[in-house]
Amino acid sequence: MRVLGVDPGLTRCGLGVVDVARDRRATFVGVGVVGTSADQPLDARLLRIADEIDLWLEKYSPDVVAVERVFSQLNVSTVMGVAQASGVVIAAAARRSIPVALHTPSEVKAAVTGSGRADKAAVGRLVAKILGLDAPPRPADAADALALALAHAWRGSAPGSASAVGRTTAMSASALTPAQRAWQEAEAKARRGR
Amino acid sequence: MRVLGVDPGLTRCGLGVVDVARDRRATFVGVGVVGTSADQPLDARLLRIADEIDLWLEKYSPDVVAVERVFSQLNVSTVMGVAQASGVVIAAAARRSIPVALHTPSEVKAAVTGSGRADKAAVGRLVAKILGLDAPPRPADAADALALALAHAWRGSAPGSASAVGRTTAMSASALTPAQRAWQEAEAKARRGR
Repeated sequence: MRVLGVDPGLTRCGLGVVDVARDRRATFVGVGVVGTSADQPLDARLLRIADEIDLWLEKYSPDVVAVERVFSQLNVSTVMGVAQASGVVIAAAARRSIPVALHTPSEVKAAVTGSGRADKAAVGRLVAKILGLDAPPRPADAADALALALAHAWRGSAPGSASAVGRTTAMSASALTPAQRAWQEAEAKARRGR
Repeated sequence: MRVLGVDPGLTRCGLGVVDVARDRRATFVGVGVVGTSADQPLDARLLRIADEIDLWLEKYSPDVVAVERVFSQLNVSTVMGVAQASGVVIAAAARRSIPVALHTPSEVKAAVTGSGRADKAAVGRLVAKILGLDAPPRPADAADALALALAHAWRGSAPGSASAVGRTTAMSASALTPAQRAWQEAEAKARRGR
């Protein structure tokens, strides 16, 4: 299964593609960030994001697009832009009949690190380890997009559903590969040691 | 100048087209509402709106698209859908290089009724009068879309600007046609009489 993860945003929209096998092993395919400047008019920014998403859908032909669910806890002006960008992304996938799944940030963190409250650095480190990258992808939006794609492939979700895809729960250890379990244990140890 | 006004929303997205002459006289061109059901997945809803906007842009070739600026005072779950729909609308216009202008609800009310705090019924009545319609367009989202288009044509705005387009002010009486001024005075009288 090929998943395109999208961490939507007007200033930085993270994009990450992974292939995940039936045995849950994940392979890195691509990662990037579309950045638009707050100096640009809103329509130009949204068009830039729409065009870039179209390019990624064309280039990578994902089986599913996993988008971060937008929450209103964010800054009010930020959340509007995030929601507008996510609307553009979701419509672009729907136009190509590619299923869309939404995941909350804590679901993604839990799936990748074992904790729904992991910080960005931990997510980046585990994404790099899981995908065999030399270093966590930068900026954090890129790592988050890959984490979304991994979380979707591992957790599953009703495609296209806007309803809740399950409350935050740590991924059960038995669902992890031995390597993932080892990383998770190492992370947990590191947290205890701090 | 032909303006397509859009009152964005997932459940009801209002669309209204008017032609406005240099002397500010307005002619009704078309009005409608795209409705999507909360039972449908979010991606299908956004695609439906995107497809309908494309049809309207194709059919009416507006010179500018006026979209209601999304505010966060709304219900949290509603505002997300409104913002996502507005993102899809704005990107569709931008893809065709049609300028986009954003207007706040109170700017629109002020431009059409002379009061930034006019209620929906007053907006509907004045839209009907200005455009020579037999009755206020229904549902209110349709009337709001026409009001947006009128407000844009009369007030003007920096195309595509996401920045504030001016604080709410009643439209100066001298900027109205005699007929508009008469209606505004009648409305004011009706309000005082209540």
